Amino acid sequence: MTTIQADADMLTLVNVFSVKPENQPKLVQLLVDATQQTMRHLPGFISANIHKSVDGTKVVNYAQWRSREDFDAMRLNPSVGPHMQAAAALAQFEPILCEVVDSISEGK
Amino acid sequence: MTTIQADADMLTLVNVFSVKPENQPKLVQLLVDATQQTMRHLPGFISANIHKSVDGTKVVNYAQWRSREDFDAMRLNPSVGPHMQAAAALAQFEPILCEVVDSISEGK
Repeated sequence: MTTIQADADMLTLVNVFSVKPENQPKLVQLLVDATQQTMRHLPGFISANIHKSVDGTKVVNYAQWRSREDFDAMRLNPSVGPHMQAAAALAQFEPILCEVVDSISEGK
Repeated sequence: MTTIQADADMLTLVNVFSVKPENQPKLVQLLVDATQQTMRHLPGFISANIHKSVDGTKVVNYAQWRSREDFDAMRLNPSVGPHMQAAAALAQFEPILCEVVDSISEGK
């Protein structure tokens, strides 16, 4: 289970993939496999949360890394390249590096 | 605190706002205020999590609603319109309605 909190000392990556609806299931599986096989074993990995859009045209990965340094090291890791190339062959993507400013829940 | 889980019976809204860096703090505050004053009091609201991008050009709201019906009712609620119009005056936005397919954490 993943948690979101303001002022947590981490980097959040929101990666929005635009995909043809017929390729959405394949992209989802590719991201799940990349996370299980590679990402989650790398230093600083906290979580990856793979979402599929209701309309079929997007996939969103909401991922958490311990630090910007860990994230940058991941992108340069040779084991990550093939996963990224496979994703790029299926979809366009826009990674957004961010931090949580506020987390407001129903009870709060 | 917000939690992300696969197979949770809810609707996730990932709303990506594109903004001029000088307007990023104002947009963040607007979304926090809209959530505190209005959204969190509406039926079906679970959470809103406001993120600012490191590069200053984006704001991301990761929000959870109990159902699509609650989300649609929120958008038609007259109290929501002024917040949306204020956001639209500051930024372009792309709401993505989705569901969590998999949530993979470091321990899993």
